[in-house]
Amino acid sequence: MVARPVGEPVRSDFELREAVVPEPGPGQLLVRNTWMSVDPYMRGRMNAGISYIEPFALGEVLDGGAVGEVVRSEAPDVPMGATVLHGSGWREWAMVPAAAVEVIDPAVAPPQAFLGVLGMPGVTAYVGLLDIAQLKAGDVVFVSGAAGAVGSVVGQLAKLRGHRVIGSAGSAAKVRHVVDRLGFDAAFDYREGPVVDQLRLAAPDGIDVFFDNVGGEHLEAGIELLRQDGRAALCGAISSYNSPAPAAGPDNMFRVVGARLTLRGFIVSDHRHRSAAAIAELAPALNDGRLVWQETVVEGIEQAPAAMIDLLRGANTGKMLVRL
Amino acid sequence: MVARPVGEPVRSDFELREAVVPEPGPGQLLVRNTWMSVDPYMRGRMNAGISYIEPFALGEVLDGGAVGEVVRSEAPDVPMGATVLHGSGWREWAMVPAAAVEVIDPAVAPPQAFLGVLGMPGVTAYVGLLDIAQLKAGDVVFVSGAAGAVGSVVGQLAKLRGHRVIGSAGSAAKVRHVVDRLGFDAAFDYREGPVVDQLRLAAPDGIDVFFDNVGGEHLEAGIELLRQDGRAALCGAISSYNSPAPAAGPDNMFRVVGARLTLRGFIVSDHRHRSAAAIAELAPALNDGRLVWQETVVEGIEQAPAAMIDLLRGANTGKMLVRL
Repeated sequence: MVARPVGEPVRSDFELREAVVPEPGPGQLLVRNTWMSVDPYMRGRMNAGISYIEPFALGEVLDGGAVGEVVRSEAPDVPMGATVLHGSGWREWAMVPAAAVEVIDPAVAPPQAFLGVLGMPGVTAYVGLLDIAQLKAGDVVFVSGAAGAVGSVVGQLAKLRGHRVIGSAGSAAKVRHVVDRLGFDAAFDYREGPVVDQLRLAAPDGIDVFFDNVGGEHLEAGIELLRQDGRAALCGAISSYNSPAPAAGPDNMFRVVGARLTLRGFIVSDHRHRSAAAIAELAPALNDGRLVWQETVVEGIEQAPAAMIDLLRGANTGKMLVRL
Repeated sequence: MVARPVGEPVRSDFELREAVVPEPGPGQLLVRNTWMSVDPYMRGRMNAGISYIEPFALGEVLDGGAVGEVVRSEAPDVPMGATVLHGSGWREWAMVPAAAVEVIDPAVAPPQAFLGVLGMPGVTAYVGLLDIAQLKAGDVVFVSGAAGAVGSVVGQLAKLRGHRVIGSAGSAAKVRHVVDRLGFDAAFDYREGPVVDQLRLAAPDGIDVFFDNVGGEHLEAGIELLRQDGRAALCGAISSYNSPAPAAGPDNMFRVVGARLTLRGFIVSDHRHRSAAAIAELAPALNDGRLVWQETVVEGIEQAPAAMIDLLRGANTGKMLVRL
């Protein structure tokens, strides 16, 4: 990253740089990355300000989730040829300490699934729906950004557990995907009209759980439709990530009092201990086809900035990935 | 109530009417009310719209908390002369079913205390601070409306449990009361400058618990200063009760995600089972002077509308009461 984006990132904020790959020292691995992740939260790290995670440094390589193959190992417990998940994405070759990687079993799922449904986005969906929003029998669930990596798992997980599920997405094609392929009970295109009106049509009796990835108008609509004792898991606010100014806040916060609502924000990195439980529920559903996992794949490191820009525009369906 | 208030209530929205006091039937009590409560939540009931509680009917007598003496009893378990707490305020004489009253012991505290520190406002403070905001060791607490019936108990309860406590109030005299008499560590006059700036000065390292009675600018400031894993108990929003239009929402809702905040609204009537625990903690502190309880007393039923209007203007310190 050679310039901090102002508003929407542009290609010239990024440069492709070549560097000599060093020799691994004791305990280190040289990894040939095969897939890298682009995620909405990365946009926040491109700003200079303090957030919940350290900002990216200007003039340095970005990082983020990646999987790859170990081509040189100076660590006895991670052999050459192993497939590993680690945090040094945005590069083709990564030098990483063996202690910082997770060896993954490609027999469980394709390696890139560990960047998505069986990785950070899948665990985010699981933790947010079950631990943060405290899903309980009979709850009607609304998830914003339902065609995205997190939202698509939230909705399907709730469907697998027998709930009525409503989603919002950013195009007619995504709405069809969410209903026809992911099995949501209802979905609407949030670009087609006021979110609160469309949500009320889809959930005339209200909702009990709101999983928010979008923020802004979605947050206000979710608060409006939550029934008594309703719970919102606030996961993200992609609608505002490119905005230099803060988005207007929901003007219906008094409903939080009157309807006894709970709005709770969370960051998945606080909940790593739930990964095993998430994978234990999601992997079998993925393998027997009850859980649909969609990817939007971009080819080559040189396309990574474009993938990030497109992600923030909502061009992807499902998980946005760069194949290296 | 002969007209629904638009904006701030005015005297002509109310009329004093005389009626014949009927004879009590079986199971009924005739009560001479001695004190009636005016509470901020009553303003919401004066509007026609649906809220969490049924609106007052136009042309009918209002109701609300009151205490009085039983002057006629047709119920064996509530003798004549008993002091009772009930929900038929806004009148001098009340006919109430014995099943709907609570006999109170005037030896514990003056009867009007059961409309305040040992009644609904006290239980609200207790439940909001301990159950909703989940106060825990070391938390720094901020309470808005700190000189009011609820806020004054919140802050003192937190002080009794060893916390650093900051309050906001609506005049220099109230700020002095909150610090000098109630023992808060710091307080500021929210009419003297931006709440967020004054709160940051009082809590440069942030807060962990926010008990909000005021809403609007206070809510935004509380969200801004809450530290990681902070919790807000949203109890009321008196700043907006007279506003016909919704207040602008907090524009910093993304902090709820990044700082893993929990904002939770509540209504004390859901938590009646906690009354005994609240009174068990508050009554001894009241009786030995560790808990200061202030009242603003207005004389006579004909002043009840003025008391309500003044309450919403913040003219009271502590509990606003009408002596009948």
